[in-house]
Amino acid sequence: MASLAPTSHCKVYLAGTVASDLMDEVHQGLATLDMKPKLVGFLANDDPAAKSYADWSAKTCTENGFEFDLRVVDKKNIEEAILAANVDDAVHGIIVYYPIFPAPSTQDGYIRQVVAMEKDVEGLNHKYVFNMYQNIRFLDPPQDTLKSILPCTPLAVVKVLEFLNIYNSRLPYGNRLFGKTITVINRSEVVGRPLAALLANDGAHIFSVDLDGIQVFTRGSGIKNSRHIVQPPPESLKDLNDCLPLSDVVISGVPGERFKVNNDFIRDGATCINFSSEKNFDKVAVKEKASFYVPAIGKVTIAVLLRNLIRLIHNQRALATERTSSKPVES
Amino acid sequence: MASLAPTSHCKVYLAGTVASDLMDEVHQGLATLDMKPKLVGFLANDDPAAKSYADWSAKTCTENGFEFDLRVVDKKNIEEAILAANVDDAVHGIIVYYPIFPAPSTQDGYIRQVVAMEKDVEGLNHKYVFNMYQNIRFLDPPQDTLKSILPCTPLAVVKVLEFLNIYNSRLPYGNRLFGKTITVINRSEVVGRPLAALLANDGAHIFSVDLDGIQVFTRGSGIKNSRHIVQPPPESLKDLNDCLPLSDVVISGVPGERFKVNNDFIRDGATCINFSSEKNFDKVAVKEKASFYVPAIGKVTIAVLLRNLIRLIHNQRALATERTSSKPVES
Repeated sequence: MASLAPTSHCKVYLAGTVASDLMDEVHQGLATLDMKPKLVGFLANDDPAAKSYADWSAKTCTENGFEFDLRVVDKKNIEEAILAANVDDAVHGIIVYYPIFPAPSTQDGYIRQVVAMEKDVEGLNHKYVFNMYQNIRFLDPPQDTLKSILPCTPLAVVKVLEFLNIYNSRLPYGNRLFGKTITVINRSEVVGRPLAALLANDGAHIFSVDLDGIQVFTRGSGIKNSRHIVQPPPESLKDLNDCLPLSDVVISGVPGERFKVNNDFIRDGATCINFSSEKNFDKVAVKEKASFYVPAIGKVTIAVLLRNLIRLIHNQRALATERTSSKPVES
Repeated sequence: MASLAPTSHCKVYLAGTVASDLMDEVHQGLATLDMKPKLVGFLANDDPAAKSYADWSAKTCTENGFEFDLRVVDKKNIEEAILAANVDDAVHGIIVYYPIFPAPSTQDGYIRQVVAMEKDVEGLNHKYVFNMYQNIRFLDPPQDTLKSILPCTPLAVVKVLEFLNIYNSRLPYGNRLFGKTITVINRSEVVGRPLAALLANDGAHIFSVDLDGIQVFTRGSGIKNSRHIVQPPPESLKDLNDCLPLSDVVISGVPGERFKVNNDFIRDGATCINFSSEKNFDKVAVKEKASFYVPAIGKVTIAVLLRNLIRLIHNQRALATERTSSKPVES
C-alpha cells in the first residue's frame, strides 16, 4: 500500500474556488437592485500591475452584470476627475489604481480621501478605516442598519479564512477567531496593519511581523476588550521564526527574499495564505507541512470589491430615503 | 459601555444541543427501516450509575420510536442471557451495563466478546475495536459499503468536536483534525486510549495523559502515516500542565482531584470538554479562558448508541441479503 500513499495531505484552495461562493452572494445582491451598477476606475500611472488589475476588474464586472468605465487620466488631473465622478449620479462606485504619487510622497493618502465616502468601493476613506480599527461595524449606531465598508484586501483574507472554517461559526459573530493564533507578515498601512487589527478584533491572537520587529495584536486575555490592543512581543519572540511554530495560520503579504517563509518553522497542519505578488512559501515544501495552502487571493479581492459596491448602493439608497423623509414639510 | 461588557466570551454548549442534530439523523435513519428496532439492556450489578444509565436509555428509546427491554440478571447468568439474545431474531441490539466483575478481575473483557458482533451497539467487539485502532472504516473492504461500528463514548466526543467545527469540513474526510493539538486526560482501555487513537487517526496531534505519564499519538509529520503511531513525549513535556498551553482542545475523562484541570495552564481560547462523572474543570474559571466549554456529554453518548443501532440493522440486512444471494442454486 505504501506506493499508493499520497505524498501530501495539504489541501490547496485556489482563489477562484473561494471567490465562487462570494460571486453567488454578489449575484443575489445584484438581483435585488433592479439596475446595472456602474464602477469607475481611475488609472493615472503606467504600472503594468495596475493596468492588469484594471483589465481584470473590467472583465469581472462585464461578465457579472456590472458596468465598468476605465478612465485613464494624467496624474495632474486625478483630483478633478475624481471630484467629477463623486457628484455624477450615474457613477455608483469608484476605484483608483495606486500608486499615483509613489513613496516617499504621501500624496496618495490625500487622493484616497478625495474619493466620496459613499462611492469608495475600496473602503479606504478615513471613516471606514477608523471604524475598522475601532471595531465599529455600522455607519449608523445605535440603529446599526448600514454596514461600514471594509478595505478589499484585508476583507478578502477574512473571506478566505471564513471559507476555510478558520472562523468558527459556532462562536458568536465578532468573536469567531477566538483561540486562533495568526502570524501576519507585513505591517503596511494599506494592508498588513489593517489586516492584523481586523483579525484581532474578531478574537485572534496576532503576531504582526515586519522589518522593524514584532507587534502583538489581541483583545486581551479571554478577548475581554471590545477592540484590539497592540503590545510588544514576549521576550521569547525575537523574529518571524519564533512566531511560526506557534501559529495556526501564516499570512504572507510582502514580496522579497527577506520575507520568504522558512518551511522548517511552520507548525504541522498550519494554514498558509499568500497574498504577496510573489510566492512567499516554497510551493513544494509548504505542502509537506500545511493543512491548507492558498497561493494567491486576487480573485477573492475582486469579488469583495463588487460585494462592497452592492453594499455602497444599499447605503446610498438608505441615506437618500432618510434625507427625503427628514425634509421639512412645505406649508 | 464597560458595565455592559460581558464577563466571559466562552460559549457553553450542553450535550442536549449537540445530541439534537444527531437525533434528527437517528429519526431519518429510523424512517428508512419500516420497523421498530429492539434494544436489549443487561443489568447485572447494583451500581446506581449503571441503573441510572439504563433508565435514561429506556426513556430515550421509548420517546424516539425504539423498543427497550431491560433484563436484570444475576451475574452468574449473564453469559447465557447474552447468548440467548444473540440468537433471538427479535433482538436487534444489545447493551451491557458494566462493571459486572469489577477490577482486578478482567472477566468483563470476556463478556464484551460474548455479545454478538452484529448486535453490539457499544462497538466493543474486538473486530470493531481493532478496526478503530487500525483506522479501518469498513467491515467489507474493498467494497466499503458496511461501516464499522465505533465505541459510543469516543464517538460521542468526535460528534461533539464535529459540532464545534473542530473537525474542519474543508479538509478531506479522515483528515479533518489535521493541525489540531488535543490533550486527552485518561488512557483507559475503555475510553481514553481508543479516543486518543481515533482522534489521532483523524489527523490530530494527541497528548494522552494519565498517571503513568504522557504518550503522543499522531500520524507523523504531515500526517503521512495511514494510521496513528504512539511515541514518548518530547523532553519538554513532563506533565499535564506542560501539555495544556499547547492544546487547542482539552478533553477530561477521569474523575478525581488528581485530574482536575488547572485553569492557569489552559490556552486562551481553547475548547474544554468534560466527559468524566465529575466536573473536572472549574466551571467559573474555565469560562474566563475557553472559547467552548462542554460540561458533560451523556446525551450525546445515548444518541450515538441509537445511531449505532440503526447502522447495525443496515449491516444485518446487507449481510442477510448477501447470504441469501450467494446460496447455491438447487438443481
